Amino acid sequence: MALAYLGSKKADPAAVMSSPPHLILTQDELKKIAAYKAVEFVESGMVLGLGTGSTAKHAIDRIGELLQQGKLANIIGIPTSTKTHEQASSLGIPLSDLDTHPVLDLAIDGADEVDPDMNLVKGRGGSLLREKMIEGCCKKFVVIVDESKLVAHVGGSGLAMPVEIVPFCWKFTAQKLESMFEEAGCVAKLRVSAENGEPYVTDNGNFIIDLYFKKDIGDLRAAGDAMLRLAGVVEHGMFIDMATTLIVAGEFGVTVRNKC
Amino acid sequence: MALAYLGSKKADPAAVMSSPPHLILTQDELKKIAAYKAVEFVESGMVLGLGTGSTAKHAIDRIGELLQQGKLANIIGIPTSTKTHEQASSLGIPLSDLDTHPVLDLAIDGADEVDPDMNLVKGRGGSLLREKMIEGCCKKFVVIVDESKLVAHVGGSGLAMPVEIVPFCWKFTAQKLESMFEEAGCVAKLRVSAENGEPYVTDNGNFIIDLYFKKDIGDLRAAGDAMLRLAGVVEHGMFIDMATTLIVAGEFGVTVRNKC
Repeated sequence: MALAYLGSKKADPAAVMSSPPHLILTQDELKKIAAYKAVEFVESGMVLGLGTGSTAKHAIDRIGELLQQGKLANIIGIPTSTKTHEQASSLGIPLSDLDTHPVLDLAIDGADEVDPDMNLVKGRGGSLLREKMIEGCCKKFVVIVDESKLVAHVGGSGLAMPVEIVPFCWKFTAQKLESMFEEAGCVAKLRVSAENGEPYVTDNGNFIIDLYFKKDIGDLRAAGDAMLRLAGVVEHGMFIDMATTLIVAGEFGVTVRNKC
Repeated sequence: MALAYLGSKKADPAAVMSSPPHLILTQDELKKIAAYKAVEFVESGMVLGLGTGSTAKHAIDRIGELLQQGKLANIIGIPTSTKTHEQASSLGIPLSDLDTHPVLDLAIDGADEVDPDMNLVKGRGGSLLREKMIEGCCKKFVVIVDESKLVAHVGGSGLAMPVEIVPFCWKFTAQKLESMFEEAGCVAKLRVSAENGEPYVTDNGNFIIDLYFKKDIGDLRAAGDAMLRLAGVVEHGMFIDMATTLIVAGEFGVTVRNKC
Protein backbone atom coordinates (compact mmCIF):
# COMPACT_ATOMS: atom_id res chain seq x y z
CA MET A 1 0.00 0.00 0.00
CA ALA A 2 1.53 3.24 -1.17
CA LEU A 3 0.75 5.16 2.02
CA ALA A 4 3.15 2.95 3.98
CA TYR A 5 5.88 4.66 2.02
CA LEU A 6 5.07 8.07 3.46
CA GLY A 7 7.47 7.78 6.35
CA SER A 8 10.49 7.32 4.09
CA LYS A 9 13.34 9.76 4.50
CA LYS A 10 15.68 11.04 1.88
CA ALA A 11 18.39 8.43 1.58
CA ASP A 12 21.75 8.62 -0.11
CA PRO A 13 22.23 6.30 -3.10
CA ALA A 14 24.58 3.96 -1.22
CA ALA A 15 22.10 3.51 1.60
CA VAL A 16 19.39 2.75 -0.92
CA MET A 17 21.56 0.06 -2.43
CA SER A 18 21.97 -1.78 0.87
CA SER A 19 18.44 -1.23 2.20
CA PRO A 20 15.19 -2.79 0.89
CA PRO A 21 14.69 -2.05 -2.82
CA HIS A 22 14.00 1.64 -3.43
CA LEU A 23 10.46 2.15 -4.66
CA ILE A 24 10.19 4.29 -7.75
CA LEU A 25 6.73 5.77 -7.68
CA THR A 26 5.00 6.99 -10.78
CA GLN A 27 3.56 10.51 -10.95
CA ASP A 28 0.09 9.00 -10.66
CA GLU A 29 1.05 7.13 -7.51
CA LEU A 30 2.36 10.36 -6.00
CA LYS A 31 -0.93 12.07 -6.87
CA LYS A 32 -2.79 9.25 -5.14
CA ILE A 33 -0.67 9.59 -2.00
CA ALA A 34 -1.41 13.32 -1.78
CA ALA A 35 -5.11 12.71 -2.47
CA TYR A 36 -5.48 10.05 0.21
CA LYS A 37 -3.71 12.27 2.73
CA ALA A 38 -6.17 15.09 1.95
CA VAL A 39 -9.16 12.84 2.53
CA GLU A 40 -7.96 12.41 6.13
CA PHE A 41 -9.28 15.98 6.65
CA VAL A 42 -12.80 14.91 5.68
CA GLU A 43 -15.29 14.32 8.50
CA SER A 44 -18.83 12.98 8.44
CA GLY A 45 -21.48 15.66 7.94
CA MET A 46 -19.27 17.95 5.86
CA VAL A 47 -20.25 19.89 2.74
CA LEU A 48 -17.33 19.24 0.39
CA GLY A 49 -16.04 20.96 -2.74
CA LEU A 50 -14.96 18.25 -5.18
CA GLY A 51 -12.17 19.27 -7.54
CA THR A 52 -11.50 18.32 -11.14
CA GLY A 53 -8.51 16.63 -12.70
CA SER A 54 -6.37 13.54 -12.32
CA THR A 55 -5.30 14.22 -8.71
CA ALA A 56 -8.73 15.26 -7.43
CA LYS A 57 -10.15 12.13 -9.06
CA HIS A 58 -8.19 9.96 -6.61
CA ALA A 59 -9.59 11.93 -3.66
CA ILE A 60 -13.15 11.51 -4.90
CA ASP A 61 -12.61 7.78 -5.42
CA ARG A 62 -11.33 7.55 -1.84
CA ILE A 63 -14.32 9.49 -0.43
CA GLY A 64 -16.66 7.13 -2.30
CA GLU A 65 -14.82 4.15 -0.85
CA LEU A 66 -15.03 5.47 2.73
CA LEU A 67 -18.76 6.18 2.31
CA GLN A 68 -19.34 2.64 1.07
CA GLN A 69 -17.37 1.24 3.99
CA GLY A 70 -19.49 3.31 6.39
CA LYS A 71 -16.39 5.17 7.64
CA LEU A 72 -17.89 8.46 6.43
CA ALA A 73 -21.55 9.48 6.45
CA ASN A 74 -23.76 12.45 5.56
CA ILE A 75 -21.32 13.95 3.10
CA ILE A 76 -22.66 16.45 0.55
CA GLY A 77 -20.42 17.03 -2.46
CA ILE A 78 -20.38 20.16 -4.62
CA PRO A 79 -18.74 19.19 -7.93
CA THR A 80 -16.59 21.70 -9.81
CA SER A 81 -17.31 20.31 -13.28
CA THR A 82 -19.74 18.12 -15.15
CA LYS A 83 -16.99 15.48 -15.31
CA THR A 84 -16.60 15.44 -11.53
CA HIS A 85 -20.39 15.41 -11.21
CA GLU A 86 -20.48 12.21 -13.24
CA GLN A 87 -17.68 10.55 -11.30
CA ALA A 88 -19.14 11.43 -7.88
CA SER A 89 -22.64 10.37 -8.95
CA SER A 90 -21.37 7.00 -10.10
CA LEU A 91 -19.75 6.51 -6.67
CA GLY A 92 -23.00 7.29 -4.87
CA ILE A 93 -21.76 10.55 -3.29
CA PRO A 94 -24.81 12.79 -2.60
CA LEU A 95 -24.44 16.03 -4.56
CA SER A 96 -25.75 19.56 -4.32
CA ASP A 97 -24.77 23.04 -5.56
CA LEU A 98 -23.71 26.48 -4.37
CA ASP A 99 -27.22 27.89 -4.61
CA THR A 100 -28.33 25.42 -1.93
CA HIS A 101 -25.05 25.31 0.03
CA PRO A 102 -23.28 28.67 -0.28
CA VAL A 103 -20.80 27.83 2.49
CA LEU A 104 -18.57 24.75 2.26
CA ASP A 105 -16.57 23.12 5.03
CA LEU A 106 -13.74 21.88 2.88
CA ALA A 107 -12.65 21.60 -0.73
CA ILE A 108 -10.01 19.28 -2.14
CA ASP A 109 -8.47 19.90 -5.53
CA GLY A 110 -5.27 19.61 -7.50
CA ALA A 111 -3.33 22.48 -9.08
CA ASP A 112 -1.14 22.93 -12.14
CA GLU A 113 1.39 25.12 -10.36
CA VAL A 114 1.99 26.16 -6.75
CA ASP A 115 4.28 29.08 -5.94
CA PRO A 116 6.17 29.55 -2.63
CA ASP A 117 3.27 31.63 -1.21
CA MET A 118 0.78 28.85 -2.02
CA ASN A 119 -0.72 30.82 -4.89
CA LEU A 120 -1.94 28.44 -7.56
CA VAL A 121 -2.37 28.16 -11.29
CA LYS A 122 -5.39 26.08 -12.15
CA GLY A 123 -7.53 25.40 -15.16
CA ARG A 124 -5.39 23.32 -17.46
CA GLY A 125 -8.28 20.86 -17.09
CA GLY A 126 -10.65 23.63 -18.23
CA SER A 127 -12.78 24.07 -15.10
CA LEU A 128 -11.16 27.12 -13.54
CA LEU A 129 -14.28 29.23 -13.22
CA ARG A 130 -16.47 26.74 -11.37
CA GLU A 131 -13.48 25.70 -9.28
CA LYS A 132 -12.85 29.31 -8.28
CA MET A 133 -16.52 29.92 -7.45
CA ILE A 134 -16.70 26.85 -5.24
CA GLU A 135 -13.25 26.93 -3.68
CA GLY A 136 -13.64 30.64 -2.96
CA CYS A 137 -16.28 29.97 -0.32
CA CYS A 138 -14.73 27.08 1.60
CA LYS A 139 -13.64 27.32 5.21
CA LYS A 140 -10.67 25.14 4.28
CA PHE A 141 -9.18 24.53 0.83
CA VAL A 142 -6.73 21.62 0.64
CA VAL A 143 -4.55 21.55 -2.45
CA ILE A 144 -2.98 18.27 -3.48
CA VAL A 145 -0.05 17.99 -5.88
CA ASP A 146 2.94 15.92 -6.74
CA GLU A 147 6.23 17.76 -6.36
CA SER A 148 6.56 18.48 -10.09
CA LYS A 149 3.93 21.23 -9.62
CA LEU A 150 6.06 23.38 -7.31
CA VAL A 151 7.37 26.48 -9.10
CA ALA A 152 9.44 29.52 -8.14
CA HIS A 153 6.82 31.81 -9.69
CA VAL A 154 3.53 31.59 -11.60
CA GLY A 155 4.28 30.44 -15.13
CA GLY A 156 7.61 29.01 -13.96
CA SER A 157 6.83 25.53 -15.26
CA GLY A 158 6.75 26.89 -18.81
CA LEU A 159 3.22 25.53 -19.06
CA ALA A 160 0.08 27.58 -19.57
CA MET A 161 -1.76 30.01 -17.32
CA PRO A 162 -5.32 29.68 -18.65
CA VAL A 163 -7.78 32.56 -19.03
CA GLU A 164 -11.47 31.94 -19.72
CA ILE A 165 -12.89 34.45 -22.21
CA VAL A 166 -16.13 34.98 -24.12
CA PRO A 167 -15.97 33.59 -27.68
CA PHE A 168 -17.02 36.97 -29.17
CA CYS A 169 -13.93 38.46 -30.90
CA TRP A 170 -11.58 36.08 -29.09
CA LYS A 171 -8.60 37.03 -31.28
CA PHE A 172 -8.94 40.62 -30.11
CA THR A 173 -8.99 39.55 -26.46
CA ALA A 174 -6.05 37.17 -26.94
CA GLN A 175 -4.05 39.99 -28.51
CA LYS A 176 -4.88 42.34 -25.63
CA LEU A 177 -3.74 39.72 -23.10
CA GLU A 178 -0.49 39.13 -24.95
CA SER A 179 0.20 42.88 -25.06
CA MET A 180 -0.63 43.24 -21.37
CA PHE A 181 2.24 40.88 -20.47
CA GLU A 182 4.61 41.86 -23.24
CA GLU A 183 7.45 42.51 -20.77
CA ALA A 184 7.14 38.95 -19.47
CA GLY A 185 7.52 37.62 -23.02
CA CYS A 186 3.92 36.43 -23.10
CA VAL A 187 2.55 34.27 -25.89
CA ALA A 188 -1.25 33.77 -26.01
CA LYS A 189 -2.75 30.70 -27.66
CA LEU A 190 -6.35 29.64 -28.13
CA ARG A 191 -6.90 26.21 -26.62
CA VAL A 192 -8.18 23.74 -29.18
CA SER A 193 -9.69 20.32 -28.76
CA ALA A 194 -7.17 17.55 -29.46
CA GLU A 195 -9.93 15.54 -31.09
CA ASN A 196 -11.08 17.89 -33.82
CA GLY A 197 -8.91 21.01 -33.70
CA GLU A 198 -11.97 23.14 -32.90
CA PRO A 199 -11.81 25.69 -30.05
CA TYR A 200 -12.12 24.02 -26.67
CA VAL A 201 -15.41 25.08 -25.05
CA THR A 202 -15.75 25.29 -21.25
CA ASP A 203 -18.73 24.14 -19.19
CA ASN A 204 -19.88 27.78 -19.39
CA GLY A 205 -19.76 27.97 -23.19
CA ASN A 206 -16.57 30.05 -23.23
CA PHE A 207 -13.11 29.70 -24.80
CA ILE A 208 -9.73 29.34 -23.06
CA ILE A 209 -6.67 31.41 -23.92
CA ASP A 210 -3.47 29.79 -22.63
CA LEU A 211 -0.81 32.32 -21.66
CA TYR A 212 2.85 31.29 -21.69
CA PHE A 213 5.32 33.52 -19.87
CA LYS A 214 9.07 33.67 -20.32
CA LYS A 215 9.57 35.71 -17.14
CA ASP A 216 7.96 36.33 -13.75
CA ILE A 217 4.87 38.56 -14.15
CA GLY A 218 5.40 40.20 -10.74
CA ASP A 219 2.46 41.33 -8.57
CA LEU A 220 -0.17 38.63 -9.10
CA ARG A 221 -3.06 40.59 -7.63
CA ALA A 222 -2.36 43.55 -9.94
CA ALA A 223 -1.99 41.23 -12.94
CA GLY A 224 -5.27 39.51 -12.06
CA ASP A 225 -7.18 42.78 -11.72
CA ALA A 226 -5.76 44.05 -15.02
CA MET A 227 -6.96 40.91 -16.80
CA LEU A 228 -10.41 41.04 -15.21
CA ARG A 229 -10.82 44.69 -16.25
CA LEU A 230 -10.40 43.64 -19.84
CA ALA A 231 -13.96 43.27 -21.15
CA GLY A 232 -14.15 39.81 -22.70
CA VAL A 233 -12.19 38.13 -19.90
CA VAL A 234 -14.44 36.00 -17.69
CA GLU A 235 -11.88 34.64 -15.23
CA HIS A 236 -8.16 33.85 -14.94
CA GLY A 237 -6.48 30.74 -13.64
CA MET A 238 -4.51 32.28 -10.77
CA PHE A 239 -5.93 31.30 -7.38
CA ILE A 240 -4.35 33.97 -5.22
CA ASP A 241 -4.33 33.55 -1.44
CA MET A 242 -7.04 30.86 -1.55
CA ALA A 243 -5.32 27.61 -0.52
CA THR A 244 -5.25 27.00 3.23
CA THR A 245 -3.40 23.66 3.20
CA LEU A 246 -0.93 22.27 0.70
CA ILE A 247 -0.13 18.56 0.47
CA VAL A 248 2.85 17.66 -1.68
CA ALA A 249 3.78 14.09 -2.49
CA GLY A 250 7.33 13.60 -3.65
CA GLU A 251 9.73 10.79 -4.23
CA PHE A 252 10.94 11.03 -0.64
CA GLY A 253 7.67 11.49 1.23
CA VAL A 254 4.65 13.67 1.71
CA THR A 255 4.61 17.12 3.26
CA VAL A 256 1.63 19.02 4.66
CA ARG A 257 1.88 22.79 4.92
CA ASN A 258 -0.72 25.13 6.37
CA LYS A 259 -1.12 28.75 5.40
CA CYS A 260 0.07 31.02 8.19
CA MET B 1 -37.13 69.73 -38.25
CA ALA B 2 -36.19 69.12 -34.68
CA LEU B 3 -32.59 70.34 -35.04
CA ALA B 4 -33.84 73.88 -35.70
CA TYR B 5 -34.91 73.90 -32.09
CA LEU B 6 -31.38 73.45 -30.78
CA GLY B 7 -30.73 77.15 -30.41
CA SER B 8 -33.62 77.72 -28.01
CA LYS B 9 -32.80 79.21 -24.66
CA LYS B 10 -34.46 78.61 -21.36
CA ALA B 11 -37.48 80.91 -21.26
CA ASP B 12 -39.68 81.91 -18.37
CA PRO B 13 -43.30 80.76 -18.60
CA ALA B 14 -44.62 84.29 -19.27
CA ALA B 15 -42.23 84.76 -22.17
CA VAL B 16 -43.29 81.41 -23.57
CA MET B 17 -46.90 82.54 -23.46
CA SER B 18 -46.20 85.64 -25.56
CA SER B 19 -43.66 84.07 -27.97
CA PRO B 20 -44.32 81.49 -30.70
CA PRO B 21 -45.91 78.31 -29.32
CA HIS B 22 -43.48 76.46 -27.01
CA LEU B 23 -42.47 73.11 -28.52
CA ILE B 24 -42.86 70.23 -26.10
CA LEU B 25 -40.47 67.55 -27.32
CA THR B 26 -40.96 63.93 -26.48
CA GLN B 27 -38.12 61.93 -24.91
CA ASP B 28 -37.65 60.17 -28.23
CA GLU B 29 -37.30 63.49 -30.05
CA LEU B 30 -34.65 64.55 -27.54
CA LYS B 31 -32.79 61.28 -28.14
CA LYS B 32 -32.91 61.96 -31.86
CA ILE B 33 -31.51 65.46 -31.43
CA ALA B 34 -28.55 64.13 -29.41
CA ALA B 35 -28.00 61.32 -31.92
CA TYR B 36 -27.98 63.62 -34.95
CA LYS B 37 -25.56 65.96 -33.21
CA ALA B 38 -23.20 63.02 -32.54
CA VAL B 39 -23.22 61.99 -36.19
CA GLU B 40 -21.70 65.39 -37.01
CA PHE B 41 -18.46 63.92 -35.58
CA VAL B 42 -18.45 61.14 -38.19
CA GLU B 43 -16.13 61.55 -41.18
CA SER B 44 -15.73 59.48 -44.32
CA GLY B 45 -13.24 56.62 -43.98
CA MET B 46 -13.83 56.09 -40.27
CA VAL B 47 -14.13 52.76 -38.44
CA LEU B 48 -17.16 53.30 -36.20
CA GLY B 49 -18.47 51.56 -33.09
CA LEU B 50 -22.24 51.33 -33.39
CA GLY B 51 -24.10 51.32 -30.09
CA THR B 52 -27.26 49.54 -29.02
CA GLY B 53 -30.54 50.94 -27.73
CA SER B 54 -33.20 53.47 -28.62
CA THR B 55 -30.84 56.50 -28.77
CA ALA B 56 -28.04 54.78 -30.69
CA LYS B 57 -30.66 53.54 -33.15
CA HIS B 58 -31.31 57.12 -34.28
CA ALA B 59 -27.59 57.69 -34.86
CA ILE B 60 -27.31 54.54 -36.97
CA ASP B 61 -30.37 55.53 -39.01
CA ARG B 62 -28.75 58.91 -39.64
CA ILE B 63 -25.42 57.35 -40.70
CA GLY B 64 -27.30 55.10 -43.12
CA GLU B 65 -29.11 58.14 -44.53
CA LEU B 66 -25.88 60.11 -45.05
CA LEU B 67 -24.24 57.10 -46.75
CA GLN B 68 -27.21 56.79 -49.10
CA GLN B 69 -27.05 60.51 -49.85
CA GLY B 70 -23.34 60.17 -50.62
CA LYS B 71 -22.46 62.65 -47.85
CA LEU B 72 -20.43 59.93 -46.13
CA ALA B 73 -18.33 57.19 -47.73
CA ASN B 74 -16.04 54.28 -46.78
CA ILE B 75 -17.51 53.85 -43.34
CA ILE B 76 -16.92 50.54 -41.54
CA GLY B 77 -19.28 49.82 -38.66
CA ILE B 78 -18.54 47.54 -35.70
CA PRO B 79 -21.90 46.63 -34.16
CA THR B 80 -22.21 46.14 -30.38
CA SER B 81 -25.07 43.63 -30.57
CA THR B 82 -26.83 41.27 -32.94
CA LYS B 83 -29.75 43.73 -32.95
CA THR B 84 -27.54 46.60 -34.09
CA HIS B 85 -25.92 44.27 -36.62
CA GLU B 86 -29.35 43.65 -38.15
CA GLN B 87 -30.29 47.32 -38.20
CA ALA B 88 -26.99 48.45 -39.74
CA SER B 89 -27.05 45.64 -42.31
CA SER B 90 -30.54 46.59 -43.41
CA LEU B 91 -29.32 50.17 -43.95
CA GLY B 92 -26.43 49.01 -46.10
CA ILE B 93 -23.69 50.07 -43.66
CA PRO B 94 -20.57 47.91 -44.31
CA LEU B 95 -19.77 45.93 -41.13
CA SER B 96 -16.72 44.28 -39.61
CA ASP B 97 -15.54 43.18 -36.17
CA LEU B 98 -12.86 43.80 -33.54
CA ASP B 99 -10.73 40.89 -34.71
CA THR B 100 -10.29 42.64 -38.07
CA HIS B 101 -10.36 46.23 -36.77
CA PRO B 102 -8.97 46.32 -33.24
CA VAL B 103 -8.71 50.13 -33.23
CA LEU B 104 -11.78 52.29 -33.85
CA ASP B 105 -11.89 55.97 -34.71
CA LEU B 106 -15.16 56.74 -33.00
CA ALA B 107 -18.03 55.06 -31.21
CA ILE B 108 -21.49 56.50 -30.64
CA ASP B 109 -23.80 55.04 -28.03
CA GLY B 110 -26.45 55.94 -25.49
CA ALA B 111 -26.25 55.40 -21.74
CA ASP B 112 -28.70 54.66 -18.95
CA GLU B 113 -27.05 57.01 -16.48
CA VAL B 114 -24.29 59.62 -16.67
CA ASP B 115 -22.67 60.95 -13.50
CA PRO B 116 -20.98 64.38 -13.17
CA ASP B 117 -17.57 62.84 -14.10
CA MET B 118 -19.03 61.35 -17.28
CA ASN B 119 -18.93 57.83 -15.85
CA LEU B 120 -21.78 55.80 -17.30
CA VAL B 121 -24.16 53.01 -16.44
CA LYS B 122 -24.99 50.94 -19.48
CA GLY B 123 -26.53 47.61 -20.22
CA ARG B 124 -30.21 48.02 -19.48
CA GLY B 125 -30.53 46.98 -23.13
CA GLY B 126 -28.50 43.86 -22.32
CA SER B 127 -25.40 44.46 -24.48
CA LEU B 128 -22.98 45.81 -21.90
CA LEU B 129 -20.16 43.37 -22.54
CA ARG B 130 -19.85 43.82 -26.29
CA GLU B 131 -20.37 47.56 -25.87
CA LYS B 132 -17.54 47.70 -23.35
CA MET B 133 -15.21 45.63 -25.55
CA ILE B 134 -15.82 47.84 -28.56
CA GLU B 135 -16.07 51.23 -26.88
CA GLY B 136 -12.98 50.48 -24.83
CA CYS B 137 -10.76 50.69 -27.90
CA CYS B 138 -12.07 53.83 -29.59
CA LYS B 139 -10.05 56.97 -30.03
CA LYS B 140 -13.22 58.91 -29.32
CA PHE B 141 -16.39 57.71 -27.56
CA VAL B 142 -19.38 60.01 -27.94
CA VAL B 143 -22.22 59.37 -25.50
CA ILE B 144 -25.69 60.60 -26.41
CA VAL B 145 -28.48 60.99 -23.88
CA ASP B 146 -31.57 62.97 -23.11
CA GLU B 147 -31.33 64.97 -19.91
CA SER B 148 -33.32 62.43 -17.87
CA LYS B 149 -30.17 60.26 -17.81
CA LEU B 150 -28.06 62.72 -15.81
CA VAL B 151 -27.60 61.58 -12.21
CA ALA B 152 -25.72 62.82 -9.15
CA HIS B 153 -24.14 59.37 -8.69
CA VAL B 154 -24.28 55.88 -10.24
CA GLY B 155 -27.58 54.28 -9.30
CA GLY B 156 -29.05 57.71 -8.59
CA SER B 157 -31.92 57.21 -11.02
CA GLY B 158 -33.24 54.38 -8.87
CA LEU B 159 -32.99 52.16 -11.94
CA ALA B 160 -30.74 49.14 -12.34
CA MET B 161 -26.97 48.81 -12.63
CA PRO B 162 -26.68 45.58 -14.64
CA VAL B 163 -24.05 42.89 -14.08
CA GLU B 164 -23.50 40.09 -16.59
CA ILE B 165 -22.86 36.75 -14.87
CA VAL B 166 -22.47 33.10 -15.89
CA PRO B 167 -25.72 31.13 -15.47
CA PHE B 168 -23.98 28.50 -13.28
CA CYS B 169 -25.25 29.01 -9.69
CA TRP B 170 -26.59 32.47 -10.49
CA LYS B 171 -28.45 32.73 -7.17
CA PHE B 172 -25.18 32.35 -5.32
CA THR B 173 -23.56 35.11 -7.39
CA ALA B 174 -26.59 37.40 -7.00
CA GLN B 175 -26.44 36.94 -3.23
CA LYS B 176 -22.70 37.72 -3.19
CA LEU B 177 -23.31 40.92 -5.16
CA GLU B 178 -26.11 42.01 -2.84
CA SER B 179 -23.91 41.39 0.21
CA MET B 180 -21.02 43.28 -1.39
CA PHE B 181 -23.12 46.47 -1.52
CA GLU B 182 -25.11 45.90 1.65
CA GLU B 183 -24.19 49.34 2.99
CA ALA B 184 -25.66 50.98 -0.10
CA GLY B 185 -28.95 49.14 0.49
CA CYS B 186 -28.43 46.97 -2.58
CA VAL B 187 -31.14 44.71 -3.93
CA ALA B 188 -30.11 42.19 -6.64
CA LYS B 189 -32.67 40.85 -9.11
CA LEU B 190 -32.31 38.37 -11.95
CA ARG B 191 -33.48 39.95 -15.19
CA VAL B 192 -36.28 37.96 -16.78
CA SER B 193 -37.75 38.15 -20.23
CA ALA B 194 -41.02 40.11 -20.29
CA GLU B 195 -42.36 37.66 -22.84
CA ASN B 196 -42.07 34.37 -20.99
CA GLY B 197 -40.72 35.08 -17.50
CA GLU B 198 -37.60 33.00 -18.25
CA PRO B 199 -34.15 34.40 -17.42
CA TYR B 200 -33.02 36.96 -19.97
CA VAL B 201 -30.03 35.57 -21.90
CA THR B 202 -27.35 37.89 -23.32
CA ASP B 203 -25.71 37.60 -26.74
CA ASN B 204 -22.92 35.73 -24.89
CA GLY B 205 -25.25 33.15 -23.33
CA ASN B 206 -25.07 34.72 -19.86
CA PHE B 207 -27.62 36.09 -17.35
CA ILE B 208 -28.03 39.66 -16.09
CA ILE B 209 -28.33 40.59 -12.42
CA ASP B 210 -29.82 44.07 -11.97
CA LEU B 211 -28.50 45.86 -8.90
CA TYR B 212 -30.61 48.59 -7.29
CA PHE B 213 -28.88 50.91 -4.83
CA LYS B 214 -30.49 53.10 -2.20
CA LYS B 215 -27.28 55.08 -1.61
CA ASP B 216 -24.11 56.15 -3.42
CA ILE B 217 -21.68 53.19 -3.70
CA GLY B 218 -18.63 55.47 -3.46
CA ASP B 219 -15.38 54.67 -5.31
CA LEU B 220 -16.53 53.24 -8.63
CA ARG B 221 -13.18 51.77 -9.65
CA ALA B 222 -12.91 49.87 -6.34
CA ALA B 223 -16.53 48.69 -6.63
CA GLY B 224 -15.88 47.53 -10.20
CA ASP B 225 -12.73 45.61 -9.28
CA ALA B 226 -14.50 43.96 -6.34
CA MET B 227 -17.31 42.76 -8.63
CA LEU B 228 -14.90 41.48 -11.28
CA ARG B 229 -12.93 39.53 -8.67
CA LEU B 230 -16.08 37.62 -7.84
CA ALA B 231 -15.82 34.40 -9.87
CA GLY B 232 -19.06 34.13 -11.82
CA VAL B 233 -19.16 37.84 -12.74
CA VAL B 234 -18.35 38.39 -16.40
CA GLU B 235 -18.69 42.18 -16.61
CA HIS B 236 -20.44 45.10 -14.89
CA GLY B 237 -22.36 47.94 -16.43
CA MET B 238 -20.24 50.84 -15.15
CA PHE B 239 -18.22 52.48 -17.92
CA ILE B 240 -15.65 54.32 -15.88
CA ASP B 241 -13.55 57.03 -17.50
CA MET B 242 -14.41 55.84 -21.02
CA ALA B 243 -16.61 58.57 -22.53
CA THR B 244 -14.68 61.37 -24.24
CA THR B 245 -17.65 63.49 -25.35
CA LEU B 246 -21.12 63.80 -23.85
CA ILE B 247 -24.07 65.15 -25.80
CA VAL B 248 -27.17 65.93 -23.77
CA ALA B 249 -30.45 66.95 -25.35
CA GLY B 250 -32.86 68.68 -23.02
CA GLU B 251 -36.05 70.63 -23.22
CA PHE B 252 -34.08 73.85 -23.58
CA GLY B 253 -31.34 72.82 -25.99
CA VAL B 254 -28.41 70.54 -26.59
CA THR B 255 -25.08 70.68 -24.80
CA VAL B 256 -21.78 69.12 -25.88
CA ARG B 257 -19.17 68.45 -23.23
CA ASN B 258 -15.68 67.10 -23.79
CA LYS B 259 -13.70 65.19 -21.20
CA CYS B 260 -10.83 67.29 -19.89
